[in-house]
Amino acid sequence: MDYRPYMRKAHYYETDQMGIVHHSNYIRWLEEARLDFMEQIGVDYVKLEEMGILIPVLSVQCDYRLTTKYNETVMIVPKLEKVSAVKFKISYRIMAPRTKELHNTAQTEHCFLNREFKPVFLKKDYPELYSLFKRYEGFDLTDL
Amino acid sequence: MDYRPYMRKAHYYETDQMGIVHHSNYIRWLEEARLDFMEQIGVDYVKLEEMGILIPVLSVQCDYRLTTKYNETVMIVPKLEKVSAVKFKISYRIMAPRTKELHNTAQTEHCFLNREFKPVFLKKDYPELYSLFKRYEGFDLTDL
Amino acid sequence: MDYRPYMRKAHYYETDQMGIVHHSNYIRWLEEARLDFMEQIGVDYVKLEEMGILIPVLSVQCDYRLTTKYNETVMIVPKLEKVSAVKFKISYRIMAPRTKELHNTAQTEHCFLNREFKPVFLKKDYPELYSLFKRYEGFDLTDL
Amino acid sequence: MDYRPYMRKAHYYETDQMGIVHHSNYIRWLEEARLDFMEQIGVDYVKLEEMGILIPVLSVQCDYRLTTKYNETVMIVPKLEKVSAVKFKISYRIMAPRTKELHNTAQTEHCFLNREFKPVFLKKDYPELYSLFKRYEGFDLTDL
Repeated sequence: MDYRPYMRKAHYYETDQMGIVHHSNYIRWLEEARLDFMEQIGVDYVKLEEMGILIPVLSVQCDYRLTTKYNETVMIVPKLEKVSAVKFKISYRIMAPRTKELHNTAQTEHCFLNREFKPVFLKKDYPELYSLFKRYEGFDLTDL
Repeated sequence: MDYRPYMRKAHYYETDQMGIVHHSNYIRWLEEARLDFMEQIGVDYVKLEEMGILIPVLSVQCDYRLTTKYNETVMIVPKLEKVSAVKFKISYRIMAPRTKELHNTAQTEHCFLNREFKPVFLKKDYPELYSLFKRYEGFDLTDL
Repeated sequence: MDYRPYMRKAHYYETDQMGIVHHSNYIRWLEEARLDFMEQIGVDYVKLEEMGILIPVLSVQCDYRLTTKYNETVMIVPKLEKVSAVKFKISYRIMAPRTKELHNTAQTEHCFLNREFKPVFLKKDYPELYSLFKRYEGFDLTDL
Repeated sequence: MDYRPYMRKAHYYETDQMGIVHHSNYIRWLEEARLDFMEQIGVDYVKLEEMGILIPVLSVQCDYRLTTKYNETVMIVPKLEKVSAVKFKISYRIMAPRTKELHNTAQTEHCFLNREFKPVFLKKDYPELYSLFKRYEGFDLTDL
């Protein structure tokens, strides 16, 4: 039971005139890291959407500590904090790969919806999917 | 028979570390100006998609002459250059509202597809929509 | 002492394959609304950067209640919650202009930095600017 | 004398409500591929900007043949078509990695500017940099 952190190099078009990555882009990086994490633990989001399951965002929270420059690579470490019958919460550390200095800490919450944007009760309707998530609840990537 | 040019103020997050609007954003502004133009001439893109008609981009061409800074407003003047049974071409001038100096000139080509991404023959299948477009073919906004 | 809420129409390129505005774009809309608010109360961000003052984001928090569709217009109401000698906090309501239904609630925190990314003590170094901010602390736009 | 093509997986936030990657994002992918190519041939853009050299875009042209879906990976093959004393032109093929089917063909033109946005005559002012570029003029990556 393991997964790799998500490595991300900052693109030029992600910078703004302050000369650093614009703060909105980290929210996109969280999504990249989240979907990469889900793929690694066996939850393929492409298949999910084909099955008619959407996973929208309920809330986003991000703290900015260190700026990121163009062409700099950061390591994003998602952690599945909590999984319930109808939603889940992920925390993220964005850090310098070598020094492990924190650039950002963040958190997102999600629910499961069907194509009509009605709630899906994952635990009841898709028990196997639910247990895939549940296995990783609270699991911490420590050896980075 | 007339329409207004599209006015657009540059957002902070649209700049890059050169201190100017990143070149990719103009392609997005063209889309804004195009959909605004279509709405003005009576082609409501929301309704089009509800009817199952998509208007993807076949090609984009953009020349960059003057840079645009954060909070600067430009005027975008679309012109429907050519409408055929299955596709159309629009040209654009992006300019300073007062001096009329050209920031960019651009051109995009489009076709009509249905939800299955199969071609729609607008002239044959949606003659009224076709004539809405056709009326503006070659029409030039001159009094800016 | 007053200001207008910020009106924003969703662009096509801001949607994702769920058919709604991608959640990261709201973070950008907050910036638009914030800079528009600052301009309205007399704090011109263009001049600020010319003076060498940057206002980076320390934290972002956003809750998603209602989705926004392409071409839909929302009203964003920023409120300057707290101003201190070195930083400030703004809350935002994003809502349907007519019904006042909440699409999102959000909050951002900011500090003042110079070009070398060192803290600027606004109260001490730019007292006039500080009082411009301070005047609006806690002021609520009620008559929407 | 060689370089690797640029591999790129489409992000979820790069899709639009048509369910495909929005056309503006390919323009960003071209930049990623271009800067990756430059890094590979020894032109480090970070150092260039530190030296005060900017490489803005003069024109962009992109044809759209096949759509790209979320999580799909494309291979981008840049080719330095022409290098002159003051500017250069790159063409790009964006294709499916296995089948080599073309998603897009594109072309961008660039010049060299200094921090004051005045032209830099690379051949004269930075002959070593010029020859790095010149070596790859017309060189084609064939064995993909």
